[in-house]
Amino acid sequence: MEKQSNSLVVRLVGSLVGYMRRFLFRFLSVGPIPCHVAFILDGNRRYARKWKMDDRMGYKVGFLALMRLMRCCHELGVKYITVYVFSIENFKRRPEEVQNVMELMLEKIEGLIKEEGILNQYGVRMEFVGNLKLLAEPVRIAAEKAMRLTAHHKSLVLVVAVAYTSTDEITHAAQECCQDKAAHGNQQQLVEVADVERHMYMAVAPDPDILLRTSGETRLSNFLLWQTSNSLLYSPAVLWPEVGLHHLVWAVLNFQRVQSYLHKRRNCLYLSTQ
Amino acid sequence: MEKQSNSLVVRLVGSLVGYMRRFLFRFLSVGPIPCHVAFILDGNRRYARKWKMDDRMGYKVGFLALMRLMRCCHELGVKYITVYVFSIENFKRRPEEVQNVMELMLEKIEGLIKEEGILNQYGVRMEFVGNLKLLAEPVRIAAEKAMRLTAHHKSLVLVVAVAYTSTDEITHAAQECCQDKAAHGNQQQLVEVADVERHMYMAVAPDPDILLRTSGETRLSNFLLWQTSNSLLYSPAVLWPEVGLHHLVWAVLNFQRVQSYLHKRRNCLYLSTQ
Repeated sequence: MEKQSNSLVVRLVGSLVGYMRRFLFRFLSVGPIPCHVAFILDGNRRYARKWKMDDRMGYKVGFLALMRLMRCCHELGVKYITVYVFSIENFKRRPEEVQNVMELMLEKIEGLIKEEGILNQYGVRMEFVGNLKLLAEPVRIAAEKAMRLTAHHKSLVLVVAVAYTSTDEITHAAQECCQDKAAHGNQQQLVEVADVERHMYMAVAPDPDILLRTSGETRLSNFLLWQTSNSLLYSPAVLWPEVGLHHLVWAVLNFQRVQSYLHKRRNCLYLSTQ
Repeated sequence: MEKQSNSLVVRLVGSLVGYMRRFLFRFLSVGPIPCHVAFILDGNRRYARKWKMDDRMGYKVGFLALMRLMRCCHELGVKYITVYVFSIENFKRRPEEVQNVMELMLEKIEGLIKEEGILNQYGVRMEFVGNLKLLAEPVRIAAEKAMRLTAHHKSLVLVVAVAYTSTDEITHAAQECCQDKAAHGNQQQLVEVADVERHMYMAVAPDPDILLRTSGETRLSNFLLWQTSNSLLYSPAVLWPEVGLHHLVWAVLNFQRVQSYLHKRRNCLYLSTQ
């Protein structure tokens, strides 16, 4: 009996929180809503050490924080989320740590694409960007499967940057431009900004409106250097697993303050929720 | 008599301030000193409007602030300063405003390279980076003259980004990579990160340790996107002409806090003052 009433209270509180969140989002959506928010998930390992867990548990709690924020972004009407999960430089970490992250990534991708998973529930399309050849074979196959299975979803795009660095992306684009020129036998024609842009891995999404990096660090660490030229950079001083709704709301309010100025500088289409 | 004693007081106060500044720098140089500090000079026009001056006067006061900071950087042992003076996008401003900036730039370059000017006094080499062909002819000629006349200076390098955007710089580097490949008749060889880097306008300097942008804005506005991946970004909420020594000191202290981490990520040689 006591168990039943406890469960009722939990459900009631959950509904109340959900109602308040939606009310807050309705209030926010009077102003422009960012169409693309990018995240640098900084601080998972420090969080694990802080709470005396192993690193793997830190990443797991970080994944839950990502899912929480993805739900908030979806409710808010954000159309693209990009997350920096694993950089090319991260491959230099200890082999067992790289192995751990690869296993966890495989587990999470497989969990996400299940029929009853969050991607189907919210209509999320997944895109993996980066030098995917560098990934462990099973992870690469799972990533390709996730992209294929969710290609028809239209509500939100979750771009996952793995085996990614911005300098690698730009160099790859330069390489593609050279191949284009060689293929067309036109060595005199100049490479244009639009040519480089077209060959970026990140051509799947408009430039981010907001880049949020946790841990209070203001560096970009080789993430979306080309694309964040006119993005709002926001660095709350919390570790990634501690990031919450209020950080997202604060970032959106700051974005709304400068949006009309940024809008002039870009062609990105800002979408307001209905 | 009164005038003489006033002048004596002014000189005494000046000496005292100079002494305190050098003492502060000696204290700071116990830690690592950044070898390259980059500045986005944001807020000159807003400063002019705030004090009911015309825009031209705002730029002039901004130039004085730059000279003040350059002297501080020189005393501190910084080896490279880069300033974002005029972007390619700024050419879209009203023609008379562009004309004003070009005239002012010409006036300031000519003033700087005079025999008794600050460049000779401090041994400053000037480098202009950007698509210099876009500059008004007299400004381009003056810029080339300044680079030629100061080429032998070794104490500090002042890199001036004019007619510059980072995407233009990267696109230009991609173009050069393609030409290299075509010239060597080797279309199969992949473009490497180092190839792109070698063709950057900013190859004249190591990557910045600190990027300071005034006006509290955290955007990079198409400035050094490639090079600031592992730089400390610092955005004090003052207009550029109001920037002072304490902002520089605060940036250096923050840099010293994270330097050992950044150092691992880069090959830049950090130089301490003697």
